[in-house]
Amino acid sequence: MDLKPTKPLSGFIELLPSQQRCFDYCANKMLNVLRMAGFSLLDLPAIERAEVLTDKDNWDEIETQMFLFQKGDTKMGLRYDGTVGLSRYVAGHLNDLVFPFRASQFSKRYRGERAQRGRYREFYQMDLDIMGINTLSTNYDAEIISVINRALESVSEFIGPVEVLIGSRPFWDALFDYLEMNADQKKEVFVLIDKKDKMGDEDFAMGLSDTLNNTNKENLIKSVFANGYAGFVNKTEQLDAAINELTNFMTVLNGMGVKCAKIDLSVTRGLAYYTGLVFEFKLINHPELGTAAGGGRYADLAGKFSKTKIIGVGAAIGFSRIFAAMLENNQIDLTCFSKPVDVAVLVMGDENVAYATNVVNNLRDENIVAVSYLDTDKKFKNQIEYADKIGARFAAIVGETEVANNTIALKNMESGNQESVSVADAVKIIKA
Amino acid sequence: MDLKPTKPLSGFIELLPSQQRCFDYCANKMLNVLRMAGFSLLDLPAIERAEVLTDKDNWDEIETQMFLFQKGDTKMGLRYDGTVGLSRYVAGHLNDLVFPFRASQFSKRYRGERAQRGRYREFYQMDLDIMGINTLSTNYDAEIISVINRALESVSEFIGPVEVLIGSRPFWDALFDYLEMNADQKKEVFVLIDKKDKMGDEDFAMGLSDTLNNTNKENLIKSVFANGYAGFVNKTEQLDAAINELTNFMTVLNGMGVKCAKIDLSVTRGLAYYTGLVFEFKLINHPELGTAAGGGRYADLAGKFSKTKIIGVGAAIGFSRIFAAMLENNQIDLTCFSKPVDVAVLVMGDENVAYATNVVNNLRDENIVAVSYLDTDKKFKNQIEYADKIGARFAAIVGETEVANNTIALKNMESGNQESVSVADAVKIIKA
Repeated sequence: MDLKPTKPLSGFIELLPSQQRCFDYCANKMLNVLRMAGFSLLDLPAIERAEVLTDKDNWDEIETQMFLFQKGDTKMGLRYDGTVGLSRYVAGHLNDLVFPFRASQFSKRYRGERAQRGRYREFYQMDLDIMGINTLSTNYDAEIISVINRALESVSEFIGPVEVLIGSRPFWDALFDYLEMNADQKKEVFVLIDKKDKMGDEDFAMGLSDTLNNTNKENLIKSVFANGYAGFVNKTEQLDAAINELTNFMTVLNGMGVKCAKIDLSVTRGLAYYTGLVFEFKLINHPELGTAAGGGRYADLAGKFSKTKIIGVGAAIGFSRIFAAMLENNQIDLTCFSKPVDVAVLVMGDENVAYATNVVNNLRDENIVAVSYLDTDKKFKNQIEYADKIGARFAAIVGETEVANNTIALKNMESGNQESVSVADAVKIIKA
Repeated sequence: MDLKPTKPLSGFIELLPSQQRCFDYCANKMLNVLRMAGFSLLDLPAIERAEVLTDKDNWDEIETQMFLFQKGDTKMGLRYDGTVGLSRYVAGHLNDLVFPFRASQFSKRYRGERAQRGRYREFYQMDLDIMGINTLSTNYDAEIISVINRALESVSEFIGPVEVLIGSRPFWDALFDYLEMNADQKKEVFVLIDKKDKMGDEDFAMGLSDTLNNTNKENLIKSVFANGYAGFVNKTEQLDAAINELTNFMTVLNGMGVKCAKIDLSVTRGLAYYTGLVFEFKLINHPELGTAAGGGRYADLAGKFSKTKIIGVGAAIGFSRIFAAMLENNQIDLTCFSKPVDVAVLVMGDENVAYATNVVNNLRDENIVAVSYLDTDKKFKNQIEYADKIGARFAAIVGETEVANNTIALKNMESGNQESVSVADAVKIIKA
């Protein structure tokens, strides 16, 4: 029989144990920041009804983008983000939750497209959302940004400093109205703005010209990317309202201690969901990773599930995008994750297994990572080699002498020093 | 537009925040026991190539049991257990790992069958496995059982006491040889034994009779369920070897401090994988949940991936089977998970948001769960009602007086007492 492949499918991440420990360490650090900020960690199903995942019904096209399957009469598929499940969940539990409700999710999401370099088909995102019924101050938008900022700061030793760029959907709406663009033009220009980074300045200008055919309007739109809102103060009430919202928001953010924020009106966060302020976090030392986290406000989060108007502000942190990528590129020093074992307990003969296990259990009760080597017929040389290979800081050797004296022979694997000690003393030495 | 359904698909679990906190608390307690025992927590892809998931090629039948999909020429599907991915991973990383290698997994698995009462289509299992190259003492089987026992003990306040039943595949092999059964009979009788609990004694007896047509042999097999191995000592070398392995194993387990183990030869753990000792954990107070954890030894774990012989002993703890079930049945007191917030920070006016956020950040830095209420135009009455609804132990009220005096008004939500204190003093009071 031919051997089957041992590599995972392309686009799927598989880490070595030391990499995984780093990944988990960073996730826990960040999740703890969210927990202290009162976010409830939810764990929703990875599979949803197809009708929940999408409003479209061109299944052939959707099938290329998602993992879909049919069971009986029910079409279902793997989620591609956390928002679709969250909005369903919240709409279904309006009476069980207190609003404003703070939810976080740290879970795998799936994209069914062909795998590309740097794009995963299975990946973790860490979401945080605050949802209110009928009303929700933009202070919560600032709170979300502040908490993300603190979460990313908690792992800054690995990812370095961040910045957050703030955009405004209402600003563009107001500008398009000011320029008297029709509905088609608004839509087309917004798509151009969203794709500007990918298409480059020249194609962007050409696209604008094709759509608007008006040099003055084209130049005014281009001026936003060079000068921001500067040219649009005191033009219309709508523009002033959008600009005021944005500048007030920057003041609130600054007051909250978020010092790394700046306005960037080119940030729009694509076409779906968002209706208010939007934002993107970047890793200053890792521009190659693109957007580390992004989010914004939606006026009606769960409209397709409930007649109650749920306003949301939320964001997704591209956890795998950051950490799986950096780990795969060897950009993180794994020294402190490579040697998780404190003590290897080496057992000289089957008759000493019971005693050794008692030692091991005592160590583990003291939060000491203790691994027993239980192929007791192996020579001491092999056993100590194992202790060395797993990087144990200490070896605890258990033979008949130790059992008779109720001790262990504790060997410091770095210095080579060995002494006969009680388990209680061993605990003190190991924890010192 | 019609509203879409808010319930998850049948067979999928969705917990309320307090239930989820209990679920996560128990998972972390148990995972910490595994971590202290030196198990590396792996996180493998949920999707595998279909050829990795199964050796069969009757796709129509398999498709009813699994979630399968095709992307380009590649058939793939969601894993139904942790072993298939683990064996692929270990075979692919023989040179990156130190053996015996201790791996654990806590991950979602999927069964595509129609949902039945109490059977989930998405569920967590917690696996632990120890793998050796060419050799692996049965002491490791005992170690796995000991670690599971400690993990379940760590959450005994929720699930009560456990027992573990030990079976032996070699015993049955030896008995079948002693009874001079042919290959077909061995297979058929083994299937009967495996299904005995479900089919009942009468059908079991009838099945035995159909297959063996020999009253003496039938009675000898039935005697195992009443009297264990008692009637088979000193019959054949093979039987004695199997019985000795089992009785020695019980001595080792007992020496390791596992006092809740007993021999039960009716435990066989189905048809696949296992070649040695097998075991099942039961919750003594919750027989309705069936097997809480089960596992055993396989002589050649990764034969389809590698020519290197990897011996494994492993087990899966039915984490969702235990905890999701008990939570859904309201069998766990959630009092201590229902009020996660220590302090609700209430902000009287937008001009105080910056100060309040500074307070909140100071509290969170002290590992105090602090939630700010940021709809600052809401009346005090509404804000204090929010603090009450989320079950906050304290409310910290921030208005212009507090900002001017660099204090907060700290209200004990239970006693109603309120005092003006510095943040530093508030930390002491809240932590007291």
